[in-house]
Amino acid sequence: MTPTEHAQLALLLEVAGTPKPGNVDRHRDLADLRFEHFLAGSVGAGEGLRLAESGAPVGEAFETAVAGMSQQEGGNTQFGCLLLLVPLVKADCETDLSPAGVESVVESTTVADAAGFYRAFEHVDVAVDDPPENAPDLDVRRGADAVPTLESRGLTLADVMESSADRDTNAREWVDGFPRTFETAESILADEGPILDRAARAFLDLLADEPDTLVATQHGEEVAREASARAAEVGHDLDAAEELAETFVAEGINPGTTADQTASALYVALRRGVPL
Amino acid sequence: MTPTEHAQLALLLEVAGTPKPGNVDRHRDLADLRFEHFLAGSVGAGEGLRLAESGAPVGEAFETAVAGMSQQEGGNTQFGCLLLLVPLVKADCETDLSPAGVESVVESTTVADAAGFYRAFEHVDVAVDDPPENAPDLDVRRGADAVPTLESRGLTLADVMESSADRDTNAREWVDGFPRTFETAESILADEGPILDRAARAFLDLLADEPDTLVATQHGEEVAREASARAAEVGHDLDAAEELAETFVAEGINPGTTADQTASALYVALRRGVPL
Repeated sequence: MTPTEHAQLALLLEVAGTPKPGNVDRHRDLADLRFEHFLAGSVGAGEGLRLAESGAPVGEAFETAVAGMSQQEGGNTQFGCLLLLVPLVKADCETDLSPAGVESVVESTTVADAAGFYRAFEHVDVAVDDPPENAPDLDVRRGADAVPTLESRGLTLADVMESSADRDTNAREWVDGFPRTFETAESILADEGPILDRAARAFLDLLADEPDTLVATQHGEEVAREASARAAEVGHDLDAAEELAETFVAEGINPGTTADQTASALYVALRRGVPL
Repeated sequence: MTPTEHAQLALLLEVAGTPKPGNVDRHRDLADLRFEHFLAGSVGAGEGLRLAESGAPVGEAFETAVAGMSQQEGGNTQFGCLLLLVPLVKADCETDLSPAGVESVVESTTVADAAGFYRAFEHVDVAVDDPPENAPDLDVRRGADAVPTLESRGLTLADVMESSADRDTNAREWVDGFPRTFETAESILADEGPILDRAARAFLDLLADEPDTLVATQHGEEVAREASARAAEVGHDLDAAEELAETFVAEGINPGTTADQTASALYVALRRGVPL
């Protein structure tokens, strides 16, 4: 399979992996965000991923992938996943699918890539935190309106990610060479059994390891820390995780950023030959 | 979305549709054939579908799609679906997605297309019936070895389908202008509610309407007729269908050909704008 195909398959395996407490999975929908929206998002992201594979800039590939993903009525399904997958696909094709390879992709991003990232927010509503107080012009919700500010300040996409890295674990992946992605990929490879069970255990590990950014955005940091503590109690017990899944859905706790990193880890595991 | 993307999405919605008694669906796996194998098959089929979209001959596109689909350890996931989808995609791109459009694709098939169809059997084990007594040389299980016979007799892929149309409902679709596909697409469009429920009801209608070819191949025609009668009793009652799903899996009744036609109907419904 090509990098694009593996990236699309990673998106599909991520959403199918079950139980992934609080998220849409093979056995659960949320109120207006259903399994089929993620299937459509995975297919629709193909064009943007192929752009990344064929050498297009990160920003253009990402915006195209998000536009393609958004051709369904559920809203934001895989914005964060694609933010991680696009540089990984580029690293895979241009240098090496490794922390160093993806760091070099990140370092080579430009102001135009930052503009593409901002424009991507115009295709879909993404739940995000308020911008830092000293940077209201750079609120991602401004979309293309923020581009003149990016240009006047000369901010690359790497700079934008740097500025969110203290409160967004996806941005931290970008800044730090994707440590959670690569570590979790190795866990998935070392694990046993069907890939969808491995995906569920990877999700639980990631959630136990770090508070989820989306949960923190929607419910505050204390709730996010508690959610991770509850995932840590569950460990790899998938029956207990089934119960936690019911509870999290009832409480509206949706660890979406953890799911993003599950998808990026699945991508690396697929590229490294996890059996399926 | 492009025809290829809609075809891949149709494959994904088909396998996710639940309950589809006797088949892998969102909530059920079979012993060695699991949900994730279908996800991988849907992604892997992309290259062949894109060939069909860009004007390649049916046989080449189909063989490529089947080879791509087979990059997973579950075995045959979507051979029959692709046999229906490839000419539909071609009709969509070259003439018109209608019975007349796909009939013209079928009529224009060549001996080379028939050879591609036979070669496709080399990529994956497909459960098929014995060939007619007067045509042992044309047993599809011979794969490429049957090509000299196809050539010496000048048999096109339309001819090959014609010869199986009395005992294979997919071949009958080919011969008759895809009547079940187009009728079921209209039912899906006229139906209400989430697409995965519509897919399940479409499957139940198709199964009630005609005995399944794969069930007849594996268990005999009497069992296939009974399975359809049991689906007819269920009607559109998805709770009753859940029970029937448990029973069919326990009895090893796997209406795979009905699933193929569910996928082709979903493709037409997607192209005609079913909401998702």
